[in-house]
Amino acid sequence: MERLQRQSAFERIQRPQLVVDREKCRANIRRMLSKANAHVVTLRPHFKTHQSVEIGELYRQEGIEHITVSSVQMAQFFADNGWSDITIAFPVNLREIDGIRKLNRQIRLTLLVESTHAVRFLDEQMDSEVNVCIEVDTGYGRTGIDWRSTAELEALLDRITGSRMVRLAGLLAHNGHTYHAQSANEVLEIHESSIEKLVQVRRLAENYQPDVRISLGDTPACSLSEFFEGVDEIRPGNFVYYDLQQRSIGSCTFEQIAVVVACPVVSVQKRTQKIIVYGGAVHLSKQSMQEQGQSIHGLVVSLSDGGWREPIANTYVASVSQEHGIIHCRDAGFLAATKPGDLVGIVPVHSCLAANLLPEPHFI
Amino acid sequence: MERLQRQSAFERIQRPQLVVDREKCRANIRRMLSKANAHVVTLRPHFKTHQSVEIGELYRQEGIEHITVSSVQMAQFFADNGWSDITIAFPVNLREIDGIRKLNRQIRLTLLVESTHAVRFLDEQMDSEVNVCIEVDTGYGRTGIDWRSTAELEALLDRITGSRMVRLAGLLAHNGHTYHAQSANEVLEIHESSIEKLVQVRRLAENYQPDVRISLGDTPACSLSEFFEGVDEIRPGNFVYYDLQQRSIGSCTFEQIAVVVACPVVSVQKRTQKIIVYGGAVHLSKQSMQEQGQSIHGLVVSLSDGGWREPIANTYVASVSQEHGIIHCRDAGFLAATKPGDLVGIVPVHSCLAANLLPEPHFI
Repeated sequence: MERLQRQSAFERIQRPQLVVDREKCRANIRRMLSKANAHVVTLRPHFKTHQSVEIGELYRQEGIEHITVSSVQMAQFFADNGWSDITIAFPVNLREIDGIRKLNRQIRLTLLVESTHAVRFLDEQMDSEVNVCIEVDTGYGRTGIDWRSTAELEALLDRITGSRMVRLAGLLAHNGHTYHAQSANEVLEIHESSIEKLVQVRRLAENYQPDVRISLGDTPACSLSEFFEGVDEIRPGNFVYYDLQQRSIGSCTFEQIAVVVACPVVSVQKRTQKIIVYGGAVHLSKQSMQEQGQSIHGLVVSLSDGGWREPIANTYVASVSQEHGIIHCRDAGFLAATKPGDLVGIVPVHSCLAANLLPEPHFI
Repeated sequence: MERLQRQSAFERIQRPQLVVDREKCRANIRRMLSKANAHVVTLRPHFKTHQSVEIGELYRQEGIEHITVSSVQMAQFFADNGWSDITIAFPVNLREIDGIRKLNRQIRLTLLVESTHAVRFLDEQMDSEVNVCIEVDTGYGRTGIDWRSTAELEALLDRITGSRMVRLAGLLAHNGHTYHAQSANEVLEIHESSIEKLVQVRRLAENYQPDVRISLGDTPACSLSEFFEGVDEIRPGNFVYYDLQQRSIGSCTFEQIAVVVACPVVSVQKRTQKIIVYGGAVHLSKQSMQEQGQSIHGLVVSLSDGGWREPIANTYVASVSQEHGIIHCRDAGFLAATKPGDLVGIVPVHSCLAANLLPEPHFI
């Protein structure tokens, strides 16, 4: 019966939809949590990957209480769904001060700051005391204060500890460059050198206040590293779903990838060995990656009763336009068996972007 | 007063939002409509660009009655907003047959087919007669029957004219490769050669049925060409907003671009000459283009009372992550004047993708 229900569930999918394998997610959560526990660090998973109440429930069932999001809106959404300790790991958007005030009365909120301008603004505008982490740039070069900029760090620490409404909760860094690492070793090097730098900044910060916490850890580093000495909290998000990019870095196996995008086939071109699906840039995003010398936008799986197995050989999403996904298929059997109206699964390059575009997942 | 109201309207923008200059849209619509009238072709604008009831109203005020969309959902949305003649210019998604049946009772619907499989399915499943266009591939190589495949075209024409529920409305082609053209001349060549091919296919089709209409015309070709002989209908969409990609092809001037994405500044890094905005891949998409040897994700404008003027010199969006836009700014004055909490405008590379991600535009 279970088998039949699952089959008929796929049959009801009419448009591109994210399909989530709940048990794979649960296993991914348990694996990461057991690593966090072994290293005595808090797992504060990033919820921007899934933005889903149901995936939140999976985390809750494993005892997770602290979460990370990337916007005030997302924080409000999860606060309204019962989450009471949320870090917004994005430089505070001062234009949303009304929403921030409201949230800070509702839950234990932590904001991210990297300028005295922002701290002064919060100090003037908040009507309840708010926690902040200082964002430290340990090498990614996107946002945060350069870990070597002692004068700038001291000015910020001065401003925070001298404020009435802003309380220092810790130091936070994000090593987005691990996503572009060419090897597992490169990920480990970035991660370990980042910890070293944060520990130095903490020494500086502890001239101002005791017990400054360190928050660090993206999916590649948290998946691959066993070194977390000095770290208090990790914030991976992508690992709950994983994807082809993570598999290519070495963060996961193909079997651990917990999502595919189900796409209706709309055209089969036997002569040119192409399958066109309803599933394009507005469903998968424009993200591509190099795989065996090709630029690919996803791999292809058959969807059957229980989910999916290994990708179809010699078959990949070669390009996307707004709604079309163009699959190059050199597997004669799959090409011959596929017809308009069928459903295929696309394993995404970057699951966070696909999940953001397809907000109502189908769970199996 | 008008001035003050507009100013305060920008001040209420808290998060990345599409800003639409209504008068620029109106001028873009009028220019295209007057070209269509001069060439006695029907303008059936593509609504996937904007997906907006308000922009639809602008079209309606100019007398437009026939529209194009790219999905059954979008067709239903505009049917519910009073549009009664809609072509879904995407190979029919057979999994949405229930929605198609419903729509076809509500409005004059035209579907796109390119296989006997799809025609047979529609003939069996429809409960009212439905119009179809045959999609012809005149060189883009994405979907449609190759214009030289006489046997395939005849088989499809046979199947349609022999059907009970499927009525041939015309031939339709889309030259998506004009978007990647390196010059205006290349656009014109693609367009004119495509017309020639469609006219040949029409001769074949008229062995089966008189008065087969030809529908052709993307934004680059419709903006640049003055040749539409043999064409009955054009379907540009992007032109209502235009964008940097269209400017680069030569389809429009900078002044004709009718949208920017308003983005809050969250970080200013004077030393490395960077401005970080809340506005990333989930707002602008990952689409990039080459401009003066750089890969860019957008240009930057100041937002003031009436809208925006020319882009800030030597300043562009160099990369995007999920929520961050990273602006490289070599304009010392702009860099010095910008602070966290300010709002800047990003002129998008591809407005269709940005508009799809930001569904509630702010009109000026």
